[in-house]
Amino acid sequence: MTTPHIALLGLGLIGSSLGHAFKRHGLASGIRGYARSRETREAALEIGCVDSIHESATAAVHDADVIFLNVPLSAIRPLVTEIMPALKSGAIITDVGSVKASVIDAIMPILREDVYFVPGHPIAGTEQSGPYAGFAELFEGRWCILTPSSETNLHAIEMVAGLWRAIGSDVEFMEPHHHDLVLAITSHLPHLIAYNIVGTAADLEADTRSEVIKYSASGFRDFTRIAASDPVMWRDIFVQNKDAVLEMLGRFTEDLTALQRAIRHDDGETLENMFRRTRAIRKSVIEAGQDVSLPDFGRGQVAPK
Amino acid sequence: MTTPHIALLGLGLIGSSLGHAFKRHGLASGIRGYARSRETREAALEIGCVDSIHESATAAVHDADVIFLNVPLSAIRPLVTEIMPALKSGAIITDVGSVKASVIDAIMPILREDVYFVPGHPIAGTEQSGPYAGFAELFEGRWCILTPSSETNLHAIEMVAGLWRAIGSDVEFMEPHHHDLVLAITSHLPHLIAYNIVGTAADLEADTRSEVIKYSASGFRDFTRIAASDPVMWRDIFVQNKDAVLEMLGRFTEDLTALQRAIRHDDGETLENMFRRTRAIRKSVIEAGQDVSLPDFGRGQVAPK
Repeated sequence: MTTPHIALLGLGLIGSSLGHAFKRHGLASGIRGYARSRETREAALEIGCVDSIHESATAAVHDADVIFLNVPLSAIRPLVTEIMPALKSGAIITDVGSVKASVIDAIMPILREDVYFVPGHPIAGTEQSGPYAGFAELFEGRWCILTPSSETNLHAIEMVAGLWRAIGSDVEFMEPHHHDLVLAITSHLPHLIAYNIVGTAADLEADTRSEVIKYSASGFRDFTRIAASDPVMWRDIFVQNKDAVLEMLGRFTEDLTALQRAIRHDDGETLENMFRRTRAIRKSVIEAGQDVSLPDFGRGQVAPK
Repeated sequence: MTTPHIALLGLGLIGSSLGHAFKRHGLASGIRGYARSRETREAALEIGCVDSIHESATAAVHDADVIFLNVPLSAIRPLVTEIMPALKSGAIITDVGSVKASVIDAIMPILREDVYFVPGHPIAGTEQSGPYAGFAELFEGRWCILTPSSETNLHAIEMVAGLWRAIGSDVEFMEPHHHDLVLAITSHLPHLIAYNIVGTAADLEADTRSEVIKYSASGFRDFTRIAASDPVMWRDIFVQNKDAVLEMLGRFTEDLTALQRAIRHDDGETLENMFRRTRAIRKSVIEAGQDVSLPDFGRGQVAPK
């Protein structure tokens, strides 16, 4: 493929990391950046994750071959509406949103016939936000899921998939609703639960709350890390993946109610059987190479060397 | 204090780690070990976490000054009943159980007048179990909470606290019911929720389940780690800390229902406000030095160097 002009719209953790990665691997003939806030634009220039910065999205997409939308889900449709008239013919739009069906529904009706859209979702991130949190290696060895339809232009798919692979990602293709269901249980529900338990702790009386923080290494700490993720991004995810999240949350609550009942009735056997079953899943995760480290955990301790 | 004879009853992760740590720091004039299963006894001898191994708890406590009970909560009372006649006058019993009020209720009525009991709980562990998982550094820099009453012999408290400090722990004193409440939210509820969400995922149809494992780095993985903890130990914790766990679980469920309602009604504002609040707690955890690392997390990525 020829080296494309790339526009990065949104320069938070993901956008700035894309800029760093494309630069490191020499994948763009130029990277133009746009962010809504001036602070972010100035930060992006300072750290050099783009070649030029622009005060409007329209200016940033000028002459761009590939446009990455790295903004919260709720900002995608207005942004695409704004840039559509300014795109050159043959331009390829892609995104990094954590929900896919709603993004596709938002963009397809306003897409010009000579412009292409390849929906994408890199399974990569940290609990940090903003341009300073970005780094070139963010996507290395991580999955990037693309959810094009059977009608999506193949050249456009190849261009987007090629860029992700070139910065170290493993690309997979998935049907958008199925993506949203899988992510509801692997990512969205875990985040909701983490936010929730940290909120429950925040409501305790002050004395107890400070002890909860002091002894957080016993399990709670891992949840606080997840619950530190970007609030706007996650607000949008839950609203836009409502059906799948409510479906998985319903199952979770049913199961939790059964555990609650077992505890109330001193039913140790039910508890133990349940706890044995979940060990098998952990084994599968390790076997699938999804947890190579042996990290800090549980009752709160670093693992042996 | 004089160098005591120590008996370790139970040689899993905690018991074997205590043995390694006491040996490394030269804190015992002898360490006698006992475990119910022959495999564990043989493993303990092989790895050398005790000086001698015994086929009965009664034999292991012979001449012991300090006896550590490192067994699941439900095994504590039968074990103490068994060893009580064999203890020498002035012996000190301590335990490492994750629930304190129920252990105290189990032991105090059967305690001889010339024997002392100092309830303890090291906030340390990994998701590994068994003697081979133990290591001498397990307790370094971790809290150990002791919950003696105002009537507990001061020499006995000092002996137990001194041993924990000598292997690197920070010792804190707490009222037993308050300990159980704090641990219910920092440790027991997080484990219950982790077990539960992993169980919910395990019930998905096979295709989806394998994708959940494949993409587990997006949040789910952290829960599988917690949900790999020892099933018998955790069964006992939930049964023995029933009241505090049900109290915290009730609050958690109320809060989760409110979030569910916000999602159903597209109430992004409520969600965002909630997600902003939890960030402050994360900050406190980091400030309290309870998460010094910047570990793998969230949308599933290792943090920048």
